Amino acid sequence: MSDEISQESEVTRRSFLKTTGAVAAAAGLAMTGLAATVRQAEAACGEMPKKWDETYDVIVVGTGFAGLSAAIEARHAGAEVLVIEKMRTHGGNSIINGGEMAVAGTKWQKEAGIQDSPELFMKDLLKAGSNLNHPELARTIAEQSGEALDWCQNFVGARFVKLVFHGGHSVKRSVQTDNASGSGLVNPLFAKAKSMGVKFQFTTKMERLITNKEGRVVGLEIRKGYKFPDDRSGKASFVKARKAVVLASGGFSQNVELRQIQDPRIDSRFDSTNHPGATGEATLAACRAGAMDVQMDWIQMGPWTSPDEKGFGHVPQFCERLVGYGPMIDPKTGRRFIQETGNRKVRADAMMALGYPTIIFGDAVNVKRQVLSHTLEKGMANGAIKRFDTIEELAANYGIPLAALKEEIAKWNSYVEKRKDPDFNCKIFPETTPTVVAPFYACRLWPRVHHCMGGLVIDKNAQVKGFNLKPIKGLYAAGEVTGGVHGAVRLGTCAMLDCVVFGRIAGKNAAKEKNWG
Amino acid sequence: MSDEISQESEVTRRSFLKTTGAVAAAAGLAMTGLAATVRQAEAACGEMPKKWDETYDVIVVGTGFAGLSAAIEARHAGAEVLVIEKMRTHGGNSIINGGEMAVAGTKWQKEAGIQDSPELFMKDLLKAGSNLNHPELARTIAEQSGEALDWCQNFVGARFVKLVFHGGHSVKRSVQTDNASGSGLVNPLFAKAKSMGVKFQFTTKMERLITNKEGRVVGLEIRKGYKFPDDRSGKASFVKARKAVVLASGGFSQNVELRQIQDPRIDSRFDSTNHPGATGEATLAACRAGAMDVQMDWIQMGPWTSPDEKGFGHVPQFCERLVGYGPMIDPKTGRRFIQETGNRKVRADAMMALGYPTIIFGDAVNVKRQVLSHTLEKGMANGAIKRFDTIEELAANYGIPLAALKEEIAKWNSYVEKRKDPDFNCKIFPETTPTVVAPFYACRLWPRVHHCMGGLVIDKNAQVKGFNLKPIKGLYAAGEVTGGVHGAVRLGTCAMLDCVVFGRIAGKNAAKEKNWG
Repeated sequence: MSDEISQESEVTRRSFLKTTGAVAAAAGLAMTGLAATVRQAEAACGEMPKKWDETYDVIVVGTGFAGLSAAIEARHAGAEVLVIEKMRTHGGNSIINGGEMAVAGTKWQKEAGIQDSPELFMKDLLKAGSNLNHPELARTIAEQSGEALDWCQNFVGARFVKLVFHGGHSVKRSVQTDNASGSGLVNPLFAKAKSMGVKFQFTTKMERLITNKEGRVVGLEIRKGYKFPDDRSGKASFVKARKAVVLASGGFSQNVELRQIQDPRIDSRFDSTNHPGATGEATLAACRAGAMDVQMDWIQMGPWTSPDEKGFGHVPQFCERLVGYGPMIDPKTGRRFIQETGNRKVRADAMMALGYPTIIFGDAVNVKRQVLSHTLEKGMANGAIKRFDTIEELAANYGIPLAALKEEIAKWNSYVEKRKDPDFNCKIFPETTPTVVAPFYACRLWPRVHHCMGGLVIDKNAQVKGFNLKPIKGLYAAGEVTGGVHGAVRLGTCAMLDCVVFGRIAGKNAAKEKNWG
Repeated sequence: MSDEISQESEVTRRSFLKTTGAVAAAAGLAMTGLAATVRQAEAACGEMPKKWDETYDVIVVGTGFAGLSAAIEARHAGAEVLVIEKMRTHGGNSIINGGEMAVAGTKWQKEAGIQDSPELFMKDLLKAGSNLNHPELARTIAEQSGEALDWCQNFVGARFVKLVFHGGHSVKRSVQTDNASGSGLVNPLFAKAKSMGVKFQFTTKMERLITNKEGRVVGLEIRKGYKFPDDRSGKASFVKARKAVVLASGGFSQNVELRQIQDPRIDSRFDSTNHPGATGEATLAACRAGAMDVQMDWIQMGPWTSPDEKGFGHVPQFCERLVGYGPMIDPKTGRRFIQETGNRKVRADAMMALGYPTIIFGDAVNVKRQVLSHTLEKGMANGAIKRFDTIEELAANYGIPLAALKEEIAKWNSYVEKRKDPDFNCKIFPETTPTVVAPFYACRLWPRVHHCMGGLVIDKNAQVKGFNLKPIKGLYAAGEVTGGVHGAVRLGTCAMLDCVVFGRIAGKNAAKEKNWG
């Protein structure tokens, strides 16, 4: 699988020999010396490698839902496939995902008497995305969701067991893996890909997309033995892709410098729910090779994370179950400051404008009814959720002015009685009771970077578009590395679907490309 | 001013000769043949021209406020400067601009007893921009506004005569040229540049930024004799920039394909207030050469334009004077649909969601009091503003259901009496009177693309940043071609300021670059 010299170099060498060979040969000049000089000039200015170290039909970058789906489809179509992954293990963000996927028209929906359709799903996607979605991309995931679920279950062997509701969807339409985790899909995908003969190289980073004179993608410069995040680690190597490269390298939530260019508010004060490797170098490398990016400034902040635990943590489950049942407080003033049941963006924007962590709390009755005991136990065990016997203790712990806080709780309780919040129009549920019964459970909230809506421009064939507004031959992309599917705001449980649908499309189309050499 | 072979090529040729020359010479091989072969390989893969047709120190692309300011400063610093312009005349969008510039701390403000400061101005910029502004860029225009005005008046010779208020600014801080048009600044800039020896080439389009092996910008491929918008017109030519290239080529409001990638809603149903040449090829060409773009999806729509007149027209002046004094109506329902005094984005988004032109109208009393007679005369002369003797006539003309319209007017009038609009919270002014006195003046409204907030990433030195997150040597940019100064929404009268401040910075820094060859 390794060619010493690319066809590209051969052609140039042949024409060079044609021009000068006869004369040089007559002089007894060693041909290798001349050819080497020309090849050197080419490598320096045209950036084609002197030799390819390995050759495959299709190279996939990334081992999350999208990359693995692409690899399986490309292999299924007969291609020799290499998947590279810069981290030491497979799965990227997918493996720490909640394992939920939006699908319109499942058997579970039919059983539950829920009317759904790709059209309704598409409408929800555009509404959430403020119509910034590329319509043909949103339509593609809505229309192909049923087939994607079928493939995950019947071809890949993943198991989905229940239907759950997520905000922003018109109906209950998300299915969940049997282990309530993305690993419930990503592990079967990985096993399937390996069983089909897909090759994997871990600790291998994509450095550069290599294009020929016509701008066709012909391979990658990679670093083998790369130790994230040390950019000098590993050894440069060149892999030729006879047919195509598929980028499925995820977003850039962990890249502070890049996200501050896109949205300067999101500086180093903000952690991310993502795995550490979500740093987006592959996106930038693709742009340097002429790929066009879009809507990169739409970065979703999760308003439900706590600064007192790492990663995604348990507080999001505490917070999201408690909104509408207990107040959210600005600790400096002791006052409420936002509609607690508002959407992610509204809440995160308000919290970022405040500039410091806020507090959400509930009393024993509301917390016990709404929050899962598992969540409460885990959150208290790691210290992010605290229990207080009195409001005085709670105020003292967080440094909240007590008098103001007591006034605000009294006001909140009066709104709960009336089922109406004239201050912030928070949704108060029929089951909400006043915040009065000790003990009180509270935690600090500070948004975390959760998802990058923007990325590389693709068409409905998952082919990447260049800054010349034309598709780039030999380059496909799928999943969070792309932009346009979700528009301004990604709807919950649509990431997994996006990855599977466009990963499969990318893999199929990559395998269909004609060999360039 | 023309070099036959670049230094770059010379170096490569020399090293080639060093390696092979002795042997080849011994064989009696013609050196020119060998060198030509290597040069050919380079031109094809490295894209350096075989020869430069002309050479300058600094090349500026564009002849609006930004380009001319850059050219003057570069020339002032001693550089030989060429300005290219793809259109037949100078001025771009600047020449059809309203001639107003926001400046903090003018003598007019002092005379009027208005307290202002760069800090207050900066705060207004960040608020309008939803804090997506790159803070150091916003700070730069706020802090240097006074100096920019001084330079325009005392060095360039433009005349500013009065202070005007614009929405979103905390205080009255915009100054206006003596002819109430951007030509009041752009013509003096053009005259000044010519008088200083800046060279101009019109009907000359930038095709490609040329970079050397290290990624430094070394010149441009241009098309001379270009006839906008025929891409095959004109003749390719290569201009070397010894020091730097300054891009001041404006936005892409007129490029339907590009704006639909950024914001798919803004399709060909939407015209633009911009001059026809605002098509953004230079931005894309810069990206193809490695320059990074940002926030390109923030495209400002003007909600005050009419489909019944071309360009900017007279309706914007009619509409903006009338909001809060007369109702805006959805012609299909006969009902109001939006807060008439809401901001540009809120109104344009609502109108785009409706999908067809809406109607604003006022009665004789409100219109005569608020709308300038000049505006009314011109708008009626071109047919965009119509006069009706009765509401029946008005309804019939626009196909509005009469009964609903009459009901809605009665409701509006009752809100005017109460000075409170419970439906849409429209600001109703103390002078607003009920809409009852014939004749009635009305027009149709349909948003037009007005300004591109996003563009190339620059630092406070106006140097362009690449997709490697590093400044690109030899490349500067200023004005609407850049992104980050204004964030999500540009505040009125800040475009001219942005162009003058960053145009000057770009020109000064371009002239300071060391010659590369």
